[in-house]
Amino acid sequence: MRLLEETIRQIEPQDETARAAAHARLEQLTMPHWALGRLMDLAEDLAGMTGSLRPPLSRKVIVTMAGDHGVVAAGVSKYPQEVTPQMVHNFVSGGAGINAMARVADARVVVVDMGVAADLSELASKKLIVSKRVAHGTRNIAAGPAMTRDEAVRCVEAGIEVAHDLASSIDLFGTGDMGIGNTTPSSAIVAAITGFSVEQVTGRGTGIDDGQLQHKISVIKQALSTNSANPSDALDVLAKVGGFEIGGIAGLILGAASMKKPVLVDGFISTAGALIAYGLEPNCAQYMIAAHRSMEQGHRVALQHLGKQPLLDLDLRLGEGTGAALAMHLVEGAARLLTDVATFQEAAVSQASQ
Amino acid sequence: MRLLEETIRQIEPQDETARAAAHARLEQLTMPHWALGRLMDLAEDLAGMTGSLRPPLSRKVIVTMAGDHGVVAAGVSKYPQEVTPQMVHNFVSGGAGINAMARVADARVVVVDMGVAADLSELASKKLIVSKRVAHGTRNIAAGPAMTRDEAVRCVEAGIEVAHDLASSIDLFGTGDMGIGNTTPSSAIVAAITGFSVEQVTGRGTGIDDGQLQHKISVIKQALSTNSANPSDALDVLAKVGGFEIGGIAGLILGAASMKKPVLVDGFISTAGALIAYGLEPNCAQYMIAAHRSMEQGHRVALQHLGKQPLLDLDLRLGEGTGAALAMHLVEGAARLLTDVATFQEAAVSQASQ
Repeated sequence: MRLLEETIRQIEPQDETARAAAHARLEQLTMPHWALGRLMDLAEDLAGMTGSLRPPLSRKVIVTMAGDHGVVAAGVSKYPQEVTPQMVHNFVSGGAGINAMARVADARVVVVDMGVAADLSELASKKLIVSKRVAHGTRNIAAGPAMTRDEAVRCVEAGIEVAHDLASSIDLFGTGDMGIGNTTPSSAIVAAITGFSVEQVTGRGTGIDDGQLQHKISVIKQALSTNSANPSDALDVLAKVGGFEIGGIAGLILGAASMKKPVLVDGFISTAGALIAYGLEPNCAQYMIAAHRSMEQGHRVALQHLGKQPLLDLDLRLGEGTGAALAMHLVEGAARLLTDVATFQEAAVSQASQ
Repeated sequence: MRLLEETIRQIEPQDETARAAAHARLEQLTMPHWALGRLMDLAEDLAGMTGSLRPPLSRKVIVTMAGDHGVVAAGVSKYPQEVTPQMVHNFVSGGAGINAMARVADARVVVVDMGVAADLSELASKKLIVSKRVAHGTRNIAAGPAMTRDEAVRCVEAGIEVAHDLASSIDLFGTGDMGIGNTTPSSAIVAAITGFSVEQVTGRGTGIDDGQLQHKISVIKQALSTNSANPSDALDVLAKVGGFEIGGIAGLILGAASMKKPVLVDGFISTAGALIAYGLEPNCAQYMIAAHRSMEQGHRVALQHLGKQPLLDLDLRLGEGTGAALAMHLVEGAARLLTDVATFQEAAVSQASQ
């Protein structure tokens, strides 16, 4: 608990002086006023996050957190649980969606075993993945809590540790997830924290049909009524209806924010993690950048709760960090507005009449 | 006219065999079905455009076409006409928005003088820009045609020549524009071709106020009634209410399409050029990728006419090719789905139950 408490204490609001200086420069760039719209808003944010008019961004990572979910036993996914470790092997081999998108972004991929229900020790001993496993998958949230409160703290602190371990070589973090069944705890978290109905925040995950969706909704309702998580206690929500990789993502965000580093939040599962982080320390949202709007319908609600508008909207619903990787160049583009574009005065370009 | 006619003859529909093969592979990738949404649609398109399951995309260019507009004399812009050549100098110095965004995209920037109302011969003689100048700016469309029909052919053919000259070293084209006042002819083109009202397709350009917007609308209405362009004759529309850089963009698109190379269409002005290209040969749209949705309100209508959904929606309204540059990594990401992601069988990952 000490690492978590210390990390939360270190999270400060953005640097208003740097924001104001960035804003003033952006208004003088050789283009019509604020003509690059949301990219300019992001440039101002990056200055506020990093406290710099030259936000460093060249060293990038996607941290893909993997975990399994006892609730899969309730039949909420089209895929068997064995796919989680199979996909971890696919990440390590470089053949998954996130590997391809991270290559485009020129980002490293770091895979973390937060609690996969399989033995991944060989990959960990070869340092092909990072092992922070809390347990052999969560327990079935339809029958009781996913994990103990102590385990919830441990997975958040593991995420903080990952952020710390990477910090010296990384400027821009991106979150990612892998875990068969993990839209179910994510919808449960979003419903518990935002107060929206389960129907409003539950989607088709990997592609279930109407009947399966109705079943998934009933499982999530049962999980919420069985566990009665306290919405104002994010650790309680995580312990009761969460997941290890979701807690790890929350920790990664808190860790990045405590070190004033921007973090691209991927899709629905990552945003569930972001809600946990936000519940622990709302100021951490000032270091989050919403990468994209997922097809998963609860994502819109979750982003609204965080006050975030996503950069991309491409009907993605994969997770792994793919949306975060795809948005990385937009973040770099925003930073380059501050460093690479001349002002009217510098370029001797005539200004607009009033 | 011969180059234009030959180019149009060479434009073929996408390769349906390659599309089908790409579709089949994309359905087998280690991810839930079509889980990367519009990126997968784009991957299929890229295969259809290039006829390859390994679409080459690493060599990129933004072609920024510059021209001036006689209609500026009617007071449609906040900026004086001298800004067009000043911005060309800014492009050459590397200090404009497009230079910064092209660096992020790892793309070259090629600036073409299509008809700037200033002497840019020194830049051209130093090969810092390409000179295809048709005339010293267009004539005022509120008083008569922008250019002769012969000049319209010349600027489209100049764009085709630029595409040809770059083709041996370029896989992916992006369009861009510079020309003070050029939202005015662009709105006129969109109104003439789509039949939407001038009010519906006219926006604030570089940031004019309500009174200036009303004036701009009246100028465009006058241009359309004075010139009575034939909407089914794209060259007539270009000659009557267009611009040299808009014709150049149309030619660049036709040239790229004739060589089966994808072309990212930037914002509103580029899409006006795309409408001219589409009017000359509708199949060229099969090689266009809409980069973003501009703040300029006529852009939505123009994209609908082309049947295109843009990749980005970031409140951009700069032009220059900045939106095209920002979308280039998404295009590369799409191509990497075909080349870098393993199938279920290749990665030995279990498939979904039905």
